[in-house]
Amino acid sequence: MPHIFLYGPPGTGKSTIGKILARKLKIPYYDLDREVEINIGKRISDIMAQEGEEMFRAYESSALKSFVGVKDSVIALGGGALLRESNRFIAEREGKVLLLMAELPTLLERVQRDPGKRPLIAGDLKNKLTALLEKRKEHYNSFPLQHHVDNKPAEQNAREAQIKLGRHHLSAMGEYDVLVGQIGNPPFGNLIVTDENVAKHHLEKFGDIKSVIVPAGEEHKNLETVSYLWKAFLENELDRKSTVIALGGGVIGDMTGFAASTYMRGIDWIGIPTTLLSMVDASVGGKTGFDLPEGKNLIGSFHPPKLVIADPSLLLTLTDRELRSGMAEVVKHGIISDPELFAMCQRGMDWVKANLEDVVNHAMAVKIQVIEEDPYEKGIRAKLNLGHTVGHAVELVSKFELRHGEAIAIGTAAEARYAARVGLASQSTVEAIESTFEALGLPIHIPEEMPRDEIIQAMRMDKKKNAKSIRFALPVEIGKVELVNVDDLESVISE
Amino acid sequence: MPHIFLYGPPGTGKSTIGKILARKLKIPYYDLDREVEINIGKRISDIMAQEGEEMFRAYESSALKSFVGVKDSVIALGGGALLRESNRFIAEREGKVLLLMAELPTLLERVQRDPGKRPLIAGDLKNKLTALLEKRKEHYNSFPLQHHVDNKPAEQNAREAQIKLGRHHLSAMGEYDVLVGQIGNPPFGNLIVTDENVAKHHLEKFGDIKSVIVPAGEEHKNLETVSYLWKAFLENELDRKSTVIALGGGVIGDMTGFAASTYMRGIDWIGIPTTLLSMVDASVGGKTGFDLPEGKNLIGSFHPPKLVIADPSLLLTLTDRELRSGMAEVVKHGIISDPELFAMCQRGMDWVKANLEDVVNHAMAVKIQVIEEDPYEKGIRAKLNLGHTVGHAVELVSKFELRHGEAIAIGTAAEARYAARVGLASQSTVEAIESTFEALGLPIHIPEEMPRDEIIQAMRMDKKKNAKSIRFALPVEIGKVELVNVDDLESVISE
Repeated sequence: MPHIFLYGPPGTGKSTIGKILARKLKIPYYDLDREVEINIGKRISDIMAQEGEEMFRAYESSALKSFVGVKDSVIALGGGALLRESNRFIAEREGKVLLLMAELPTLLERVQRDPGKRPLIAGDLKNKLTALLEKRKEHYNSFPLQHHVDNKPAEQNAREAQIKLGRHHLSAMGEYDVLVGQIGNPPFGNLIVTDENVAKHHLEKFGDIKSVIVPAGEEHKNLETVSYLWKAFLENELDRKSTVIALGGGVIGDMTGFAASTYMRGIDWIGIPTTLLSMVDASVGGKTGFDLPEGKNLIGSFHPPKLVIADPSLLLTLTDRELRSGMAEVVKHGIISDPELFAMCQRGMDWVKANLEDVVNHAMAVKIQVIEEDPYEKGIRAKLNLGHTVGHAVELVSKFELRHGEAIAIGTAAEARYAARVGLASQSTVEAIESTFEALGLPIHIPEEMPRDEIIQAMRMDKKKNAKSIRFALPVEIGKVELVNVDDLESVISE
Repeated sequence: MPHIFLYGPPGTGKSTIGKILARKLKIPYYDLDREVEINIGKRISDIMAQEGEEMFRAYESSALKSFVGVKDSVIALGGGALLRESNRFIAEREGKVLLLMAELPTLLERVQRDPGKRPLIAGDLKNKLTALLEKRKEHYNSFPLQHHVDNKPAEQNAREAQIKLGRHHLSAMGEYDVLVGQIGNPPFGNLIVTDENVAKHHLEKFGDIKSVIVPAGEEHKNLETVSYLWKAFLENELDRKSTVIALGGGVIGDMTGFAASTYMRGIDWIGIPTTLLSMVDASVGGKTGFDLPEGKNLIGSFHPPKLVIADPSLLLTLTDRELRSGMAEVVKHGIISDPELFAMCQRGMDWVKANLEDVVNHAMAVKIQVIEEDPYEKGIRAKLNLGHTVGHAVELVSKFELRHGEAIAIGTAAEARYAARVGLASQSTVEAIESTFEALGLPIHIPEEMPRDEIIQAMRMDKKKNAKSIRFALPVEIGKVELVNVDDLESVISE
């Protein structure tokens, strides 16, 4: 796994944010300046005074090299540590570099708190800092991954840094990492499970890892396919210490996760989602399972993967309809708790396609935050059901002619309109939601010809048989939903 | 669940042992004297001095009544609290009473530490205590469940008390209770899973709880039966909050536990083992699963029940051969860590049949202790494999003509002889093991006609294919086994 390097001018909070990041990701934290001091046995200010900046940069280089090839960590760099090309090369090869930036007043205020630590700008702080920023402007600007820290508490900056870096660690149900970004070297695994469609596009990226290919489609998410996977695990001589890789959409992830959770009482698996829908939704959360003729996901387990790699470049082979459909869950995540993500969605499909990594990063962060708070769906995880009570029913009654995401868009819009009718949401919120789905080419109305009584029946079937009321997640405003019990289902879908 | 009442003369450590028991069982602890003091607002010594013993007994009665019908707890009683017949009636109806007893010197020494607490015997301690014991001798002797605390640390007394009481709490893999004793009122559950044999004998004990009956026998421990259970759960409208009861031997427990672990991503189950083998072995530990044609227990999960009720009276309907077979695992548990249990087994089958509850209590306590230390079989849980590497192979090569327990007896004896040959165990240990199995009517030698090469092949198959050596649990002495890697499998089974 790649290191995380935090870089930028003095006073951007590299060490504060770095420590929070390290704690959240459960990896070690290092401060490169401190490493130099330990290696050389002198304080930075003394090295500077006695040996000069050039020598200090050389010391930085050797400290940096000590991180090559070792277990990943968060490393706060000195403000000029990557001026040397060779240092930058190492950092960018061994990890991701996030440049932290702030306005001059922010920097000044923070630097003034502890001037002794920063020998390069000792003395006339304001002038020196201004000169230093000017001198390094081009250098700092050359780093593609940037985050501005002004006027935000450190915890928020750390969270936003995680989204920029595409790096999360979950621990509420099992301990696992989520990486967003290019796969790079394939992860270690003994067997890849994928379907015939995905195999065509992506299997070659995984070198000579053995694979088993199952037929594509939800209609194969059944016991027969799961049995086939168990036999394939046996034939490939997987044992308790083996790891399988699920390469595909939600169907592949759910079935592979389930087969892994039950093979020899549970083996490790890695999820590599290949659809937008599975990336932003099913790939995290630990739910696995398959369908019975009587209903979807009736048999399953909670068995999170050991690692999820969400590589947005894998989405480029999706059809336009598949990608749009996946965006419904992204919009839903925006409505639940990320207005910035919602605003991205409003820009329409072209912008989304050009900024897929950003979109995926934000959407996964919402899902991760919710499931970490409530892994076993005792309470607030139900927020993720926004749009799904109506959506599932519409999907079912359409006999799956509607894609999942299309049905969810319809369901979310319908539930939003209901929320407005009962005074929970404003009309402008409804309009924002509707126009966003439309900007993404997604439907917002239940097809006219679809029998309303069948939808209501399907909604009831979806939940407990004898339940009087059904719990809905309803939008209150963009970034906020509430759980509400509703008795009168007819009123939800009436326009 | 029943309360636990600790009773007996002053100085037996009722409160010390009670607090340990309560901590281990994760239930509250109360001291009846303390409850009286709180209720009346006076110290016991003042009540005695001002109102007399009769009034104090009345206060005890009302304090005792406050525990009727409330959640179970451990209650340390005053030394004469059950002299009143009505108090005894309440205690014995609401829970189990364990009488703690000790020799006079032990009592004296403990009472002298804190004489103020015990007004009835203040003054000339030795004479008063002797007189009190004499006066209450018949009373104390009338309690069937007794434990002598002399010369043992409190932790050991608490553990031995748990065994006498048949009451354990496991928490290393899920939190659950184990009760040994008569079922009494059937536990709450929505559906009983049992097999056709068990149903005949025991199903009527469960009143009108709905049931599903599957064919009996290991050959039905397969995916077909598990699928049948899933459908039965659906047909009986079980939801996420339902509880199923597994009533039967290991096959029923394993399959019901697995079906429960995977139905709607996991529902609760209660295990009520009906064979000696499943009581002392599979019913605790949380392993569930079923067989594939390629091997036993290949598919499964770790999903402990919420409650295990081991009722030795259910064993009375077993055939003689079944009961003897189950004793093989009991002997194994004795060898692993309970010389007292081993000594019980040495007394032969008639004694065992007359003392089944004691035997079950001891054997389950061994298993529980091991799995609590190592729930996921990372290390010392492998001790439980004593006799199983050879035993499984012999069972397999016999084409299951040998019962599991018979094969384990053969395996344990063979592994003991090997342990003696390599100098790990003494000859007298081997002889003790062999004579104990023989006293129980169990075989100790691999049948002469059984091809040795097939056994060796089966031993290798049981473990990792390419493993050079196989890890054996070998006896060192009665009460101690060691894990040893063995390369030369032939030498293990050669006599």
